[in-house]
Amino acid sequence: MLGLMQHQPLLISTLIEFADRHHGDGEIVSRRVEGDIHRYTWRDVAARSRRLARALDGEKLAPGERVATIAWNGYRHLELYFGVSGSGRVLHTINPRLHPEQIAWIVGHAEDRVLCFDMSFLPIVQAVHAKCPTVRKWVALCDADKLPADSGIPGLVSYESWIAAQPDSYHWPELDENTASSMCYTSGTTGNPKAALYSHRSTTLHAYAAALPDVMNLSARDSVLPVVPMFHVNAWGIPYSAALTGCKLVFPGPALDGKSVYELIEAEGVTYAAGVPTVWQMLLGHMKPAGLKFSKLNRTVIGGSACPPAMISAFQDDYGVQVLHAWGMTEMSPLGTLCTLKNKHLALPPEQQMKIRLKQGRAIYGVDMKIVGDDGKELPWDGKAFGDLYVKGPWVVREYFKGEGGDPLVDGWFPTGDVATIDADGYMQITDRSKDVIKSGGEWISSIDIENIAMAHPAVAMAACVGMPHPKWDERPVVAVVKKPGAEVSKDELLDFYKTKTVAKWQVPDDVIFVDAIPLGATGKMLKTKLREQLKDYRLPGTS
Amino acid sequence: MLGLMQHQPLLISTLIEFADRHHGDGEIVSRRVEGDIHRYTWRDVAARSRRLARALDGEKLAPGERVATIAWNGYRHLELYFGVSGSGRVLHTINPRLHPEQIAWIVGHAEDRVLCFDMSFLPIVQAVHAKCPTVRKWVALCDADKLPADSGIPGLVSYESWIAAQPDSYHWPELDENTASSMCYTSGTTGNPKAALYSHRSTTLHAYAAALPDVMNLSARDSVLPVVPMFHVNAWGIPYSAALTGCKLVFPGPALDGKSVYELIEAEGVTYAAGVPTVWQMLLGHMKPAGLKFSKLNRTVIGGSACPPAMISAFQDDYGVQVLHAWGMTEMSPLGTLCTLKNKHLALPPEQQMKIRLKQGRAIYGVDMKIVGDDGKELPWDGKAFGDLYVKGPWVVREYFKGEGGDPLVDGWFPTGDVATIDADGYMQITDRSKDVIKSGGEWISSIDIENIAMAHPAVAMAACVGMPHPKWDERPVVAVVKKPGAEVSKDELLDFYKTKTVAKWQVPDDVIFVDAIPLGATGKMLKTKLREQLKDYRLPGTS
Repeated sequence: MLGLMQHQPLLISTLIEFADRHHGDGEIVSRRVEGDIHRYTWRDVAARSRRLARALDGEKLAPGERVATIAWNGYRHLELYFGVSGSGRVLHTINPRLHPEQIAWIVGHAEDRVLCFDMSFLPIVQAVHAKCPTVRKWVALCDADKLPADSGIPGLVSYESWIAAQPDSYHWPELDENTASSMCYTSGTTGNPKAALYSHRSTTLHAYAAALPDVMNLSARDSVLPVVPMFHVNAWGIPYSAALTGCKLVFPGPALDGKSVYELIEAEGVTYAAGVPTVWQMLLGHMKPAGLKFSKLNRTVIGGSACPPAMISAFQDDYGVQVLHAWGMTEMSPLGTLCTLKNKHLALPPEQQMKIRLKQGRAIYGVDMKIVGDDGKELPWDGKAFGDLYVKGPWVVREYFKGEGGDPLVDGWFPTGDVATIDADGYMQITDRSKDVIKSGGEWISSIDIENIAMAHPAVAMAACVGMPHPKWDERPVVAVVKKPGAEVSKDELLDFYKTKTVAKWQVPDDVIFVDAIPLGATGKMLKTKLREQLKDYRLPGTS
Repeated sequence: MLGLMQHQPLLISTLIEFADRHHGDGEIVSRRVEGDIHRYTWRDVAARSRRLARALDGEKLAPGERVATIAWNGYRHLELYFGVSGSGRVLHTINPRLHPEQIAWIVGHAEDRVLCFDMSFLPIVQAVHAKCPTVRKWVALCDADKLPADSGIPGLVSYESWIAAQPDSYHWPELDENTASSMCYTSGTTGNPKAALYSHRSTTLHAYAAALPDVMNLSARDSVLPVVPMFHVNAWGIPYSAALTGCKLVFPGPALDGKSVYELIEAEGVTYAAGVPTVWQMLLGHMKPAGLKFSKLNRTVIGGSACPPAMISAFQDDYGVQVLHAWGMTEMSPLGTLCTLKNKHLALPPEQQMKIRLKQGRAIYGVDMKIVGDDGKELPWDGKAFGDLYVKGPWVVREYFKGEGGDPLVDGWFPTGDVATIDADGYMQITDRSKDVIKSGGEWISSIDIENIAMAHPAVAMAACVGMPHPKWDERPVVAVVKKPGAEVSKDELLDFYKTKTVAKWQVPDDVIFVDAIPLGATGKMLKTKLREQLKDYRLPGTS
């Protein structure tokens, strides 16, 4: 027997309609590429999204066709979020930090029909447009009078003149809620990028979940600064959750330096900001010497990589800002866990609370997770056993766009590629990437643990631990170390240093290799594949 | 093109599985009918819900068959919420305050197969069981040794012995998310009661929405006391939202007096309580003379009827507890609006904030609303125009169980039976029930406004305004007034009193009728139908 409740599909268009109708005068503030500040309201977002939808109709774009963006966080990008998906097309956000060759490949793979870009990315578009035969229309996100006369891009139009020609009345189509709404390519370290293809249903459910008190805690009283880019996993879903709650949105545009971000936070009364540790490092670096404080900022969610404990303390103790760890991935829309305390933790002393807060957090309802050992069996939640982390849920991918990479699921669970522990209270902590974990004599060794110990040594600037082939143990850990300028430490001193730390004897590295630098990727992550390549002729002590 | 996200139906079983897995040791505390305090955890709720599901299988209950409850707020009732719906049956919560004849009628209409009741309601069950031929099994929510030997109810078993016989392993069925999950009859003032039939989808979406910061703001750090009964509209969905967030739950059982509620709030560190004004009146009545304070309670949501401004002030100013107005109905699962401020209101002076807080609130994303005039056209959101309030959304009914009352929708919108204004910021305020509004010369007069003015007169204890037939104006208002003991006021004095208030001349009542009492219903609401019956021979001055 079915229930007798109203049929109402979960659609992205209902988010912008809600914000329009119930939070019409709520503010959207953007620092533009031009450098100035632009202000308008949810009502304007809605009206211009409708104009945009009409412009796409005018281009004869069929349902499901892709509209790409290469753009900063700003109001026109927000309109594209709602206008493209709401009208039944698929929004394809492209990471401008990719190599132009990769961008051209992605545009071709996605078969993008329209590509909209901020003027700061004109050089990229000039470099790739000839290699993008699927694109029928190039749109510069600027006023008509800012359009360069000689861009070299055939038929280039300005966004403003494109949508100005349209009326702002539009009837959003009533789509199947499983219709594709947007896509994002993962920047995989091996092989070609693969795309997650989100749906209206997954996006709407994620929008509810992301706004919950134990997640981003968004209300109509918030002023929210998403520093996390809209070109990557939908700025953690903030644009959708913002429409759902009617909060004020503040976009930083391209100005992510400490001074610009600080001034925006203060000028717009930002209460909540979301981003990666590097941006916050710049922000605190600007504030500390000048003795600056926040007047309204009360919390920040940090994800993308683990937040250094010192940064968490600085935010909390010096600035009264609560730092929440988040974990997720492109394949998860992206939120999977968030680190907030439970009722029973509130009476703990601060240092014990900090131990919990350093973990990646608890699952958000909708997402389930498990850790699995080499034998495929689920491991206990004791905070010690670590294994491959699997997730499932309505905002987790089932497969990639065009079936790339085959069926990724194992018994309905998505393998994250991370290795983690989960404690008895459900707090997950990443200990490694699966491909970096060291398997020694059937036991797993966390490369991150080994690196953290080395980096705690006063002479060490950076450390990377990798497994090296061993005839008896399969693999044994070695640690590549960059010394701090002017500092000295010997191999034996460093190995002795491990004995002073809580680490099992068999987990201590077999060797220390001093190097000038550890290869880093574009986002600052260590490229261990490259390190392993550099060490391909290396042999462990006592082996040949 | 469809998205490529995982298929995962929105099911009530996933809520209890989540609480079990991620908040296993989270506490559930209940004051029992026996008077003692019972404590256990979400893990226990889950295990015993699985036993219950098996017990229902043992009764050969087919999917969709109804299991009724007549019970207070407590842990066994909570298990029924998850075990009955999770296993694919429909939970039918019955209001014990209904007349036994009505209860028997409802049980027959719902075709309940199993009926579970708290021992306090044994007399009701003894009175009705012979008139309930559909019920095959009667279950007393008690231990085996508390079962009366001579209840007179054939085959009566104790809940504990019934489920104890079952193992706690169970595989929740993967249902269609639109499957019916629970039902609740409206206590309509005319005709037979009609039932809303909720689905797993509507319940799960409502659970997300109800936990949002702008709604009940539920997190794992909360200790939640639902005083609002589980026998009526699922205690505003708190049991489901509690499982979704893993918060602590505290159940008051039958002890709703001020002393019991206060002691439970303090003993269990309650941070949030939900209920109707009458219960809070008893609570404050207990606290004030004793000079008691709350140690952790920080907010309360009040619904069911408008909260008197004096109570809002007392909670806020004397006890530091924020009072949030809510509005909804059985047909809405039940939440429709909640009154929280927006970003732009935070700088307003307290008295202006209070003006907003007295309204019923803003729509929660998922629900949309509109007000409509006599001509069926949508009215402006200016805070002045008032009309019939219509709602729609995925947790609003489409039709009633068994099609009773025909198709209630008008162009996809559900008529609430309330008359309201909506202001430019989307805040809705109920001005009347549709059937009580007075239509004079094509204009509407709010009976509530007229009553509020009369009740502001120092000599008036209670006032009820109804429309009386008028040959020229169709209807004209008259106000029936109960004087305070020992107080005196004449008809002319009272009509003059209206002239000192902001009310249009044509809205002033044509007459005042002094009465000894105004007929009240079981929940304390004025029964205007009955008042109109009493006044059936009344004629307006100047008419015949």
